[in-house]
Amino acid sequence: MTKKILILPGDYIGTEVLAEAVKVLEVLKAGGEKIAWTFGHLGGAAYDAEGHPYPPSTQKAAREADAILLGAVGGPKYDEVPRELRPERGLLAIRKDLGLFANLRPARVFEELADASPLKKELISNLDILILRELTGDIYFGQPRGRRKTAEGHDEGFDTMHYSRPEVERIARVAFEAARKRSRKLCSVDKENVLDTSRFWREVVIEVSKDYPDVELSHMYVDNAAMQLVRRPKQFDVIVTGNIFGDILSDEASMLGGSIGMLPSASLDVNNKGMYEPIHGSAPDIAGQNKANPLATILSVAMMFKYSFDNAAVSDRIEAAVKKVLQQGHRTGDIASSGDKVIGTREMGDAVVAVL
Amino acid sequence: MTKKILILPGDYIGTEVLAEAVKVLEVLKAGGEKIAWTFGHLGGAAYDAEGHPYPPSTQKAAREADAILLGAVGGPKYDEVPRELRPERGLLAIRKDLGLFANLRPARVFEELADASPLKKELISNLDILILRELTGDIYFGQPRGRRKTAEGHDEGFDTMHYSRPEVERIARVAFEAARKRSRKLCSVDKENVLDTSRFWREVVIEVSKDYPDVELSHMYVDNAAMQLVRRPKQFDVIVTGNIFGDILSDEASMLGGSIGMLPSASLDVNNKGMYEPIHGSAPDIAGQNKANPLATILSVAMMFKYSFDNAAVSDRIEAAVKKVLQQGHRTGDIASSGDKVIGTREMGDAVVAVL
Ligand SMILES: CC(C)[C@H](C(=O)O)[C@@H](O)C(=O)O
Ligand SMILES: CC(C)[C@H](C(=O)O)[C@@H](O)C(=O)O
Repeated sequence: MTKKILILPGDYIGTEVLAEAVKVLEVLKAGGEKIAWTFGHLGGAAYDAEGHPYPPSTQKAAREADAILLGAVGGPKYDEVPRELRPERGLLAIRKDLGLFANLRPARVFEELADASPLKKELISNLDILILRELTGDIYFGQPRGRRKTAEGHDEGFDTMHYSRPEVERIARVAFEAARKRSRKLCSVDKENVLDTSRFWREVVIEVSKDYPDVELSHMYVDNAAMQLVRRPKQFDVIVTGNIFGDILSDEASMLGGSIGMLPSASLDVNNKGMYEPIHGSAPDIAGQNKANPLATILSVAMMFKYSFDNAAVSDRIEAAVKKVLQQGHRTGDIASSGDKVIGTREMGDAVVAVL
Repeated sequence: MTKKILILPGDYIGTEVLAEAVKVLEVLKAGGEKIAWTFGHLGGAAYDAEGHPYPPSTQKAAREADAILLGAVGGPKYDEVPRELRPERGLLAIRKDLGLFANLRPARVFEELADASPLKKELISNLDILILRELTGDIYFGQPRGRRKTAEGHDEGFDTMHYSRPEVERIARVAFEAARKRSRKLCSVDKENVLDTSRFWREVVIEVSKDYPDVELSHMYVDNAAMQLVRRPKQFDVIVTGNIFGDILSDEASMLGGSIGMLPSASLDVNNKGMYEPIHGSAPDIAGQNKANPLATILSVAMMFKYSFDNAAVSDRIEAAVKKVLQQGHRTGDIASSGDKVIGTREMGDAVVAVL
């Protein structure tokens, strides 16, 4: 069966990095992989074209696709757009609509680029953390929320944080399964000493752990985790946490290696249908200049083959190709050291294609 | 008028570091400062002595004091204590009871110790960030909270995040005033693209900024802030944020310098009555071994003189004394490099006293 990929380039550099990922898809297809793709809009581009950041056309195509490849959404052009129509609303909407509850965010260091880290080399060399962030629950979607009056009659803004048993169970299972395939160490991050949501989260994670006696479960408070990620990041292997804590910690972790332009991510539903995207943003400041690093997007294609198409061979081939171009010394501006020859987005894409 | 200090050593190394701070107080008193102190219990020690982590005796003494000096609370001894009586509940209760809404957490790097940082030296040398964390609001104390059933009949845990206008206004004013005394740059951190609480927070901060046209206000999302603190920490001067984001970011920031044993903090009410404490925890693993670094607690005394006693001269004298003992090469284990001679808690306290 041919796998259907929906490509959503999004805004600013999103279109540029996606163009290189498409080159990779073309090579794979020419080589016999049964894949086909169509294009759609999400975020600002969708607002421009169809008046909504997650329009019905995209919704339909997304539901029919086997996997989605996303560039990046958002940017200053949309600052004045009404809140409910801003690009990031499209992102939240597609996650929720497709039930993409499991966000896999690897924080890895490529040895060739270890010098780019803000941290001392010995702390991050060979770093390989997998953060599992729950993506469709928590305070992101909790009700009630909005404005209300306090007992004293003052205005206040408020939101509801919450996690239900099935929500925690399913992300915990994904995390334990992932830990099983790696070092069998799972750290669940919460704020159990303060929050009732976290207390419940921890209870359910402990229940689920009974089915995974071979995985060593630990718990850490989110403030301590933010600290430990800087202090001694290699103590972690797989981390599982809620939506808002995961948002914060995965961004922090992604900076540890110093080359955010290299990091892919996956957001999966219960059937491993997924949306794949680089973790970097739409980078309006360098858009249209052939400067963006397409490797995170190309590595997102690798994740797509691994998780949604169950094709580890192709996934490994893409990863190996990326490693190879780094070894060959190819560098976009974001990952160049002083003295390095800097190449553009297209040239980097071509380099990967050449290796493949 | 003699200033009344309530000393709450707390648990584990709390008592050890406080003993050194008391030596400093004794020197100051002998030198003519009008101060007097009494001792009380908080946290586990209070639970042991009086059955509650914030007992009535402490409450009475705390309300009468001009300032409070706290060691650290918590530890494994209290893991099995019922949740509502755990040491950290005492901490939350005293903050709330005394209205200590403004938590000042400096993240500084002492040049003598810059090598201890996990980050590359050029990124953190001369780092001096002040994080203002709101401390009595947000999801820490929001109602309703607890357990409930979802529409589908599942159990869930939930909490309420909220901020009212007066709460945001007063912490914003403290932040703008602090920025005025420093580089006139204030960064407000929120998650305005997702949370209604943050949207309200940002609105009020912008309103308050009208009274401070000389301070440059910027806004940053909390995920990006967590990332930027690692990437380029020196871009920040004063940061203001809510209770939970401040909990996470200030812990992260405190690790940037690599010597958490050096960092004091202050929690102030509307009249600058304050509670002062080192940001490190109770460190059960090294308790009773004369190993803890007392300098963060001694620097907390310096903050006490500055903020609650309006006595910058004494504050500066204490800070200078700490700087001096570092220059003299005195090092407790946590701040020692390989080859350094390591001294104990008491010896470090004596070294500061000798300089004073
Ligand atoms: C843009 C924003 C809504 C989004 C989030 O908070 O989930 C982003 O920060 C992310 O992590 O994908
Ligand atoms: C112990 C805990 C309740 C506390 C908090 O979250 O406020 C601590 O982490 C802190 O930052 O002082």
